[in-house]
Amino acid sequence: MDTSFVKTDEVQRLLDRVVGAESDQGNPRLKAILRDLVESLMALIVCHDISEDEMWGAVSFLQAGAPEFGLLMPGVGLEHFLDLYMDAKDAEAGLTGGTPRTIEGPLYVEGAPLVENDADLSSDPDDTCTLYMTGRIIGPDNEPVENAIVHVWHANSKGFYSHFDPTSAQTPFNNRRRIKLGADGRYAFHSKMPNGYSVPPGGSADQLMIALGRHGNRPAHVHFFVEAPGYRHLTTQINFGDDPFAADDFAFGTREGLLPVPNRQGDSAYIAFDFRLQRAEDRHEQQISSRIRLEVA
Amino acid sequence: MDTSFVKTDEVQRLLDRVVGAESDQGNPRLKAILRDLVESLMALIVCHDISEDEMWGAVSFLQAGAPEFGLLMPGVGLEHFLDLYMDAKDAEAGLTGGTPRTIEGPLYVEGAPLVENDADLSSDPDDTCTLYMTGRIIGPDNEPVENAIVHVWHANSKGFYSHFDPTSAQTPFNNRRRIKLGADGRYAFHSKMPNGYSVPPGGSADQLMIALGRHGNRPAHVHFFVEAPGYRHLTTQINFGDDPFAADDFAFGTREGLLPVPNRQGDSAYIAFDFRLQRAEDRHEQQISSRIRLEVA
Repeated sequence: MDTSFVKTDEVQRLLDRVVGAESDQGNPRLKAILRDLVESLMALIVCHDISEDEMWGAVSFLQAGAPEFGLLMPGVGLEHFLDLYMDAKDAEAGLTGGTPRTIEGPLYVEGAPLVENDADLSSDPDDTCTLYMTGRIIGPDNEPVENAIVHVWHANSKGFYSHFDPTSAQTPFNNRRRIKLGADGRYAFHSKMPNGYSVPPGGSADQLMIALGRHGNRPAHVHFFVEAPGYRHLTTQINFGDDPFAADDFAFGTREGLLPVPNRQGDSAYIAFDFRLQRAEDRHEQQISSRIRLEVA
Repeated sequence: MDTSFVKTDEVQRLLDRVVGAESDQGNPRLKAILRDLVESLMALIVCHDISEDEMWGAVSFLQAGAPEFGLLMPGVGLEHFLDLYMDAKDAEAGLTGGTPRTIEGPLYVEGAPLVENDADLSSDPDDTCTLYMTGRIIGPDNEPVENAIVHVWHANSKGFYSHFDPTSAQTPFNNRRRIKLGADGRYAFHSKMPNGYSVPPGGSADQLMIALGRHGNRPAHVHFFVEAPGYRHLTTQINFGDDPFAADDFAFGTREGLLPVPNRQGDSAYIAFDFRLQRAEDRHEQQISSRIRLEVA
């Protein structure tokens, strides 16, 4: 049988019923998207002759894996794909230049302390290696971006994020700050050097990676949101160019232009990195996506 | 932009990396299915110009909805589609005739008591209306099927299933039995009349139905597995033909040939219904799918 089976009257009528096509209630956009989604899944079932056992196995996997959807989405490339798609739309609209966007990941926490430049982000008494990072927030014409806020978050030396640390070793908002900048657009902070991490051993993302013959490692990296009045919101991260996984990130978050090599000197490492923002056409572009994020009171 | 974007080299390379195409480790069938699944989702994103907000909204919906995947799968028609697909494959193989299969639903429980014919399945002292159901298990040539086991499960008069009853009012395995039949293939049982139900108010399935302008109701029904040596396993259910939702089942489980009208007389209702099985070609066909089901010690 081929996938024309999903185009039979019986299946098409089912799809119409599924999305309430005859009802003028409900959300028309959701109906249109869900109809195509379900038809795609039906075609997948036929194309690969997926069995009952396999379908329910997939449902059980997703049910058990729900807490790790934030890892599975980047792990199957959909989070990175959205970046590629937004890049392509920007290019069509003539919006080029600027620091590349890349995936947010699932570990941002709302409400990190708002601090001044030169802040210390870390409180890990046992870690010795310090990262010093500095640079400028600039616009399309190299102009300094005024009154930006840089959100920084990264893992500790064991690869764990505060608020998501299974060892519970970290203080709240460790390695998380919002840094308020001035008129010159210069930023600077220091913190304890992060390390890369792997997805939780034995979890759903780990199981999937093994079943695909892949690994679940990310290189050491630092996440950023950069927001400023009049400029487009930027979600990005730097990955350390000298990390063994720099070119082989399970989350596909590493991108050309986002792989600085830290200048390591004894217990210190230095990264100089400028963020170049695009100008915002409207207020909406200045805002972060409405993705649900952990809020800490 | 059109969906040819997902056929660009950059996106195709991403898909290869996603499924570990260069690795000879992992499961080749999973790699092939996942590649097509992710590509379909990418095409859906482009086709409908799905935004970051919408994508993460969908992920959050599915994350919160994971406990209800057993309702969402029939609700979006995928469980019924699998029946249509298996029917079509049977027809291609010349396997026709027999009682139609229909969806199992998420509420079967392993290990129900094994009882003799004429058993009482219910222990609801407050319910007055009794269902008497009887008939024969027969084969393609009208021969009685010997030594069948009929698994029966259904809701109570409030539309709740034992082991899944939010009111905790039911005894274990209420309205659930496995009935062991003899050489004549005759079966008979009685129980308290079930009623239809709706998906849990405010839950994920309910939210989706509202967003689609649909309802989440099922007509009153009784589920069956029928298994017997030498015959294909049958998963089916009867829905009461006189129920207001008989032709408008949110789960698409009602099928022609499975809608008997109970003969209601005072506090009793009678249904006569024969199950016709197909002969099994191999042992695998005699078995139930490997879907994960609730097991009660």
